[in-house]
Amino acid sequence: MPEFLAGTSPAAPTSLLRKADLHASVSDPVLDTMNFLNEVTHRYPDAISFAPGRPYDGFFDSEQIFTHIRRYLDHLVEQGASVEDVRTAMYQYGPTAGQIREIIGDSLRADENTDVPAESVVVTVGAQEAMLLVLRALISGPDDVLLVASPCYVGITGAARLLDVRLRAVEEREDGLSCTDLEKAIVEEQALGRRPKACYVVPDHSNPSGTTMSARTRAELLELATRHDILIIEDSPYRRVSPGSPLPTLKSLDRDRRVVHLGSFSKTIFPGARVGFAVADQLVVDEAGRTTLLADELAKIKSMVTVNTSSLSQAAVAGALLAAEGRVSQLNARAAAYYGDALKATLRSLDAHLPARRREALGVRWNEPTGGFFLTVHVPFRADNPALTRSAQEFGVIWTPMSYFYPEEGGHHAIRLSTSYLTPMEIDEGTARFAHFVESESKSS
Amino acid sequence: MPEFLAGTSPAAPTSLLRKADLHASVSDPVLDTMNFLNEVTHRYPDAISFAPGRPYDGFFDSEQIFTHIRRYLDHLVEQGASVEDVRTAMYQYGPTAGQIREIIGDSLRADENTDVPAESVVVTVGAQEAMLLVLRALISGPDDVLLVASPCYVGITGAARLLDVRLRAVEEREDGLSCTDLEKAIVEEQALGRRPKACYVVPDHSNPSGTTMSARTRAELLELATRHDILIIEDSPYRRVSPGSPLPTLKSLDRDRRVVHLGSFSKTIFPGARVGFAVADQLVVDEAGRTTLLADELAKIKSMVTVNTSSLSQAAVAGALLAAEGRVSQLNARAAAYYGDALKATLRSLDAHLPARRREALGVRWNEPTGGFFLTVHVPFRADNPALTRSAQEFGVIWTPMSYFYPEEGGHHAIRLSTSYLTPMEIDEGTARFAHFVESESKSS
Repeated sequence: MPEFLAGTSPAAPTSLLRKADLHASVSDPVLDTMNFLNEVTHRYPDAISFAPGRPYDGFFDSEQIFTHIRRYLDHLVEQGASVEDVRTAMYQYGPTAGQIREIIGDSLRADENTDVPAESVVVTVGAQEAMLLVLRALISGPDDVLLVASPCYVGITGAARLLDVRLRAVEEREDGLSCTDLEKAIVEEQALGRRPKACYVVPDHSNPSGTTMSARTRAELLELATRHDILIIEDSPYRRVSPGSPLPTLKSLDRDRRVVHLGSFSKTIFPGARVGFAVADQLVVDEAGRTTLLADELAKIKSMVTVNTSSLSQAAVAGALLAAEGRVSQLNARAAAYYGDALKATLRSLDAHLPARRREALGVRWNEPTGGFFLTVHVPFRADNPALTRSAQEFGVIWTPMSYFYPEEGGHHAIRLSTSYLTPMEIDEGTARFAHFVESESKSS
Repeated sequence: MPEFLAGTSPAAPTSLLRKADLHASVSDPVLDTMNFLNEVTHRYPDAISFAPGRPYDGFFDSEQIFTHIRRYLDHLVEQGASVEDVRTAMYQYGPTAGQIREIIGDSLRADENTDVPAESVVVTVGAQEAMLLVLRALISGPDDVLLVASPCYVGITGAARLLDVRLRAVEEREDGLSCTDLEKAIVEEQALGRRPKACYVVPDHSNPSGTTMSARTRAELLELATRHDILIIEDSPYRRVSPGSPLPTLKSLDRDRRVVHLGSFSKTIFPGARVGFAVADQLVVDEAGRTTLLADELAKIKSMVTVNTSSLSQAAVAGALLAAEGRVSQLNARAAAYYGDALKATLRSLDAHLPARRREALGVRWNEPTGGFFLTVHVPFRADNPALTRSAQEFGVIWTPMSYFYPEEGGHHAIRLSTSYLTPMEIDEGTARFAHFVESESKSS
């Protein structure tokens, strides 16, 4: 530190900021743990990593960017845009709610049996910004509560921390979130004089646990939302990069506008574009009885966050969608098969290295997701940072402690394995190494 | 409203959201007034509008997008990137703090006499996201205060409202913000037991007033910031789209890291890219004495807002910068001259239609900015929405009431004219119409 200050004036010490004086969001423990994970990954470059939840980029080709954007520009011209119109669409400030809302609406009709007006779609800088906008709109004070499953995707808990949103975590069961547990939490919060406003769920191949919500639970959840007058925030980035045909989205089953659906193109088109969206067709009524759509209110908030979403990114995503008549499913047929195979290969290889008998004896078990990027392995030992370090150092394999994804305490004996980013060979070798690690830790525990 | 509900189920009414239950940011009066302005503009399509603060897009050409991106990809290859590296850089999740920090750092060295490590730069989705990140980092509780000039850019007050940040507005004088007034406000806030954390300023050709901070005031402001241990948030989107050579940025004069500099490429490259940045080289020290850069903390917050900035947008901006060896000034030589001429033409034409004697008699005056997009006209009548409607309807000219830009009450007798988006002919005709409107209102008042 001294050498830092050497260059600056005597007054410099006063320009030191105390971290304790900054907002709590910069001290988010999740970020520190993620940092630790990055350090371990950096320290053991030869370790095989089941940690990153990234799409496999072997299918990408940089030239596609130009094709995608060109296709969208041609589309604008086909729609009757002049050279000046196209120029303005690409260069100028764009509409806050987005310029490709119709194309996204068409895609939802083509793939998701969801027919909503373009006006209810807000294009966002990835689903992350959509989470921030929805939380900011719905949570207006310290007594408002957001319900989340535990374990939970860190993007939503991060956005909540940024906005000082009160969270109520509902522990998942082996097969995912239970409506009984959720209702109990809602009633308890209400009894405490709080207002449960919404519940965030990842119904398909959840991150981190890999669980998928059954058709029955989906129906129960919608009924529960109506009964307790809360909204469901549905986030489903993995359903179109998974094999087979997924269950209907909550939004497609939504009969009274209970569901705010968040969309992401990071897994289905590409992450670098940073394009997602929110479908928010809820009616908002003011004192004068005037109604707007929740989407209109989200757009207002967006104007204070990013103003609008990159026109280049919207063009690239729209170009890709136009190439498949909006069918994200069709765009991802090859990717979905690839990810499905990776998951199956991992499960097969785990079973080969830790057969049923053996893992029972050790007290090890895992779930068997039918899609998505993740699975959960339950272990008899504490799957914490020291264990992760031993795993990387002595066994050459990296994974994510499930406890990272618990808003409160929990998950100390579970591990998240991500299978999306690895080649078949890496999966084979990686699971072998992982099995050795688990054997060794289980014995020693 | 009834027909809205017709389509939905009996339970639907409960799915109506009351606007009063949403966060206050959706009821931001600024947004309503901006809406009114848009409606007026829409209602009177033949009116000439001095309202939009947009760059003139006559210089743009859609093909440039492809050239810019291609140039950046070639640059990566020249730097030794493999085909896979380039693919990953464009398609995959990128570093949260940005992938073009070095190129932005080089640009600051080339143009702004500012030499900061790339690590202190965070690439953001426009300067708007940078404002949100900086406010979120610095304002940790209800007693923390952000000081702003009044009138003030709505982007910062919007971000403050979104985060429930306490504002203290300091009224500008004719020649801009006075350090005496600012210090008085700081001392008053401290006396109230609050913590003034930072002051947001637009030193060059401010939006909305058009004032520029003198060299002397810049020095005083930095000294004041050190004396009262606050940070200066410097936002200067107009300095490189203005004729002549600007005064040094506050950041370039900053000797003890008092200044967080916000950058925007919306005026200098193009708005649709949505690329801006923050330079935050302040040291942050935690309880254990470990130091980080404020930029590191901003990146953490960004991971909860947008994860990272579009790689396509970063590529396009980097490509444009590389084409001019980072000299934004060189990229904008033609634009700066154009905007300068537009401003001069407006002032000349105003003077022709309302000569000194005449405007004195009426009680009308205006400032004479040397650059930027805006100027202020003081009028003897209330320049409110009804006046704006009369102006559009009867005189065919649109402008922005300065009161829109006052965080508290004020500006009721001032008007913002924006000259950036009009052609010389429109300026000529528009100022003539504006003069007639002012004449008529001044007499009737």
